[in-house]
Amino acid sequence: MKHFTDNDIRELSKYYRANLINSITGYKPANLIGTISETGETNLAIFSSVVHLGANPALIGMIVRPATVPRHTYENILRTGYYTINHVHESFVEKAHFTSANFDETESEFDTCKLQEEYIPGFTAPFVKESQVKMGMKFLQEIPIELNGTILMIGQIEHLILPGEIIGEDGNVDLEAVTSVCVSGLESYSRVTKFARFEYARVKNVPDFKA
Amino acid sequence: MKHFTDNDIRELSKYYRANLINSITGYKPANLIGTISETGETNLAIFSSVVHLGANPALIGMIVRPATVPRHTYENILRTGYYTINHVHESFVEKAHFTSANFDETESEFDTCKLQEEYIPGFTAPFVKESQVKMGMKFLQEIPIELNGTILMIGQIEHLILPGEIIGEDGNVDLEAVTSVCVSGLESYSRVTKFARFEYARVKNVPDFKA
Repeated sequence: MKHFTDNDIRELSKYYRANLINSITGYKPANLIGTISETGETNLAIFSSVVHLGANPALIGMIVRPATVPRHTYENILRTGYYTINHVHESFVEKAHFTSANFDETESEFDTCKLQEEYIPGFTAPFVKESQVKMGMKFLQEIPIELNGTILMIGQIEHLILPGEIIGEDGNVDLEAVTSVCVSGLESYSRVTKFARFEYARVKNVPDFKA
Repeated sequence: MKHFTDNDIRELSKYYRANLINSITGYKPANLIGTISETGETNLAIFSSVVHLGANPALIGMIVRPATVPRHTYENILRTGYYTINHVHESFVEKAHFTSANFDETESEFDTCKLQEEYIPGFTAPFVKESQVKMGMKFLQEIPIELNGTILMIGQIEHLILPGEIIGEDGNVDLEAVTSVCVSGLESYSRVTKFARFEYARVKNVPDFKA
């Protein structure tokens, strides 16, 4: 086994370290965040840091890095109060990946990456038409993470739109049926195949495991 | 398409809502968090909320819910200052899942779920021997999320241990080679197969996409 200490990690090259540390938390969800500025310019950016915070109220977090480069996603959310979260599927994973290029602010990633804007009545932020699982989010709070200058952005689901036929009777969603992908590291995308489902874990139904 | 508004979501049954909302952020990493109490009782719990915060310093976050039931993981981290993050692989996914049962506090999930404790010199928290990718974490900060009573726990990697042969020349880690799994919803586990890798996105290398 290879063993890196905190000192070893600090001394790695920036590129190697970014790949290594972005790989080792495990698989991450691939989502496109859609926003619009006060003057009507849309923005679309891929994020792998979307995290479930709670079901009631339905809260979702994501980590943004506003300090490093201009981050239209962050600014648009603060100014308009709304954004969308859209799953990335196999059919447009390359387009989704390249939304992360540092485009001029007059260009919308919807245009340069050829993804279609979609709107619903009474909601300002653009959805991704090609996405099968999408959420219209109301921004609630930003929490600064002073340790490294990132920010936890928290929003509540106002609209959840997905094909009815992929929702099970118990509420579980079959993401495989719509080929939602996951991310490893910074640049690798994977398809996902379910192989196990277990009961809700209770002490009385824990199997008699062997060592 | 099925369209749920925030009102619709609030009115769902608790069980259906938990499954639905836990499904729709996308795929999540499966990690076991290892801790030890001040009196030497170990604890092991599966988490799907581990999130990359930054590579330099190497910071990792996770969301905990201390308010609902006794959470030994949270208490042990606060009291001892250390914990481990261990990938879940296909070979022990069922054992990992059942660590979430609400065991008596005198029982260690290492024992009841038959996973082996492993220690390294100078680090108090237990690693999972069966895990191929594991991190020894130093707790740095807890950030309360007052909107729903959860907490973002932030730690820095002090030790990173994984097989040298799964680390690429560029630092990317081949998680497929060690069958790390991901989670969908609360109870489904999936294997992951890489199908695409792209260059770092720069404006000059964006492909000429078709609509």
